[in-house]
Amino acid sequence: MVTLEDIRKAQAALPPAIRHTPLARADALSAQLGAPVRWKCENLQVTGSYKARASYWMIAALPEERKRNGVAISSSGNFASATAFAGSLQGVRTFLVMMESTSPFKVEKTRRYGGEVVTCPNNFEARWETLRRLEREGVTVIWTFEEPNVIAGHGTIGLEIVADLPAADLVLVPVSSGGLIAGVATAVKELRPSARVIGVQPEGSNAMTVSWRRGEVTEIPEVKTIADALIARYPGKLPFAHVRKHVDDMVLVSEAEIKQAMIHLAEHGKLVAEAGGAVTTAALLSGKVDPAGGNTVALVSGGNVALETYARILQGE
Amino acid sequence: MVTLEDIRKAQAALPPAIRHTPLARADALSAQLGAPVRWKCENLQVTGSYKARASYWMIAALPEERKRNGVAISSSGNFASATAFAGSLQGVRTFLVMMESTSPFKVEKTRRYGGEVVTCPNNFEARWETLRRLEREGVTVIWTFEEPNVIAGHGTIGLEIVADLPAADLVLVPVSSGGLIAGVATAVKELRPSARVIGVQPEGSNAMTVSWRRGEVTEIPEVKTIADALIARYPGKLPFAHVRKHVDDMVLVSEAEIKQAMIHLAEHGKLVAEAGGAVTTAALLSGKVDPAGGNTVALVSGGNVALETYARILQGE
Repeated sequence: MVTLEDIRKAQAALPPAIRHTPLARADALSAQLGAPVRWKCENLQVTGSYKARASYWMIAALPEERKRNGVAISSSGNFASATAFAGSLQGVRTFLVMMESTSPFKVEKTRRYGGEVVTCPNNFEARWETLRRLEREGVTVIWTFEEPNVIAGHGTIGLEIVADLPAADLVLVPVSSGGLIAGVATAVKELRPSARVIGVQPEGSNAMTVSWRRGEVTEIPEVKTIADALIARYPGKLPFAHVRKHVDDMVLVSEAEIKQAMIHLAEHGKLVAEAGGAVTTAALLSGKVDPAGGNTVALVSGGNVALETYARILQGE
Repeated sequence: MVTLEDIRKAQAALPPAIRHTPLARADALSAQLGAPVRWKCENLQVTGSYKARASYWMIAALPEERKRNGVAISSSGNFASATAFAGSLQGVRTFLVMMESTSPFKVEKTRRYGGEVVTCPNNFEARWETLRRLEREGVTVIWTFEEPNVIAGHGTIGLEIVADLPAADLVLVPVSSGGLIAGVATAVKELRPSARVIGVQPEGSNAMTVSWRRGEVTEIPEVKTIADALIARYPGKLPFAHVRKHVDDMVLVSEAEIKQAMIHLAEHGKLVAEAGGAVTTAALLSGKVDPAGGNTVALVSGGNVALETYARILQGE
């Protein structure tokens, strides 16, 4: 299991290019809920999502000889561009396995940050096969679902939340394979055991929620959501163990609630959030999570949405 | 003239609800220009624009008896909602004189913050007449163009910029009647005389630029711009005196450049900026201002744009 010490080690390694992101007051939401709500703005993180932290640390923590031929991961988008960026910072080649269905917007962004994109067919099995091929070719593959340094990197967000708001009572975190919430919950609960940590998923992509309720890692047959950063069909085993230990509840939000939250974040927060980044706000706006008057933090995990798509959502489509 | 001491006094009076806004790194812009560029995010200020600071301080600094019957100002939108908010915080009634042509979005927002909106015909003279009427009725009118406490309130932004980036070399500021740049330039130049301060206006609303070039306050016959926060037909005399003393240059940007900057801020900064808030980014993106490798700050003064309008701009219309 990843410890607070592991997370602190990751934090100490992060360069200034990886930002301590602001906590922004969500006034309208606070007034609606009768509780002070803040957004942890990882959409303002370099590369536009929280992934840069873990990307940097998972590479930095490798022994030198394992960096020589480059590093490969599979990603639906944000992890790819963040890893390309982190590799460029450290002079390490990066190979990003992305499915053919991935938004061209995210592929292009990954290339811009200096990553080498390797496309594969639209299924999870094809991702793993492509990674295994790269591994045979001598590239260091990081299996991000099960990598402790990834969880530790994500956990630095939790350290920042508690540093900036020591009285945090409730932290909401978007969930896909579970690495993000595993890291954040570990940091938050170790530093402030009284705080609740709640995970949020789209109704159409609820693998962690199903797994958490059943008490074991469970694969769901399909995912269907506009939140293209939250499409894991099963949680990682290692994240799942952390979630069982540290997470208080899992909540689901509808596609309409996610869109409404993106609109709210633009109108009242002046923040561009992607669908996956807006699920926590959706959980609050819809009344599905009650902060009970406590200091609440909704993690806005990213802002990488194609502007055409974004404009249509703002127009209520 | 407003002094650094006046600005520090304003800063000391501001409550926690008025935020110390973040400086966000503008990576893509920095790469394009070969200079570290940051956005001073006053769009993330409470009420969605920088005005809350001056609104709070101009009311707080009044003697008690002058607050009793309420305070009135005239505003194209942002100053109105910010003053409504600041009045509510201090238990002072506020009357906001707004022209009939003002965006319903900004009128609605002002009412939501507890302000009493007084509409008047679509010309500057009608604004002043309405204010004089309110004054006769016993309301304290603040003539915001010429009020030193307004400049001092705006100046707190300059204090924050230099506190967060002591090595600032260049600060770009949107300009309408000139109060904002008067305050920011005073703070920046007093603390860091080597820094350049440049004002930016839309080509279609260039009263300060014309005045600055001629060396005297000049009224222009009309304004025409999507930047509905930057529509002063002449600068204030007091701001103008500060601009002559402290400002290094004035630059004009086109409507197309402003829209491109709004798109850039959304795509690369994940920030919703209104047109008036995007002019400084437009001046950099278009190459009209050369940072010469120095530490550059583009002030994003607000994010209050109706989402329909915003969506159309993001779609390139």
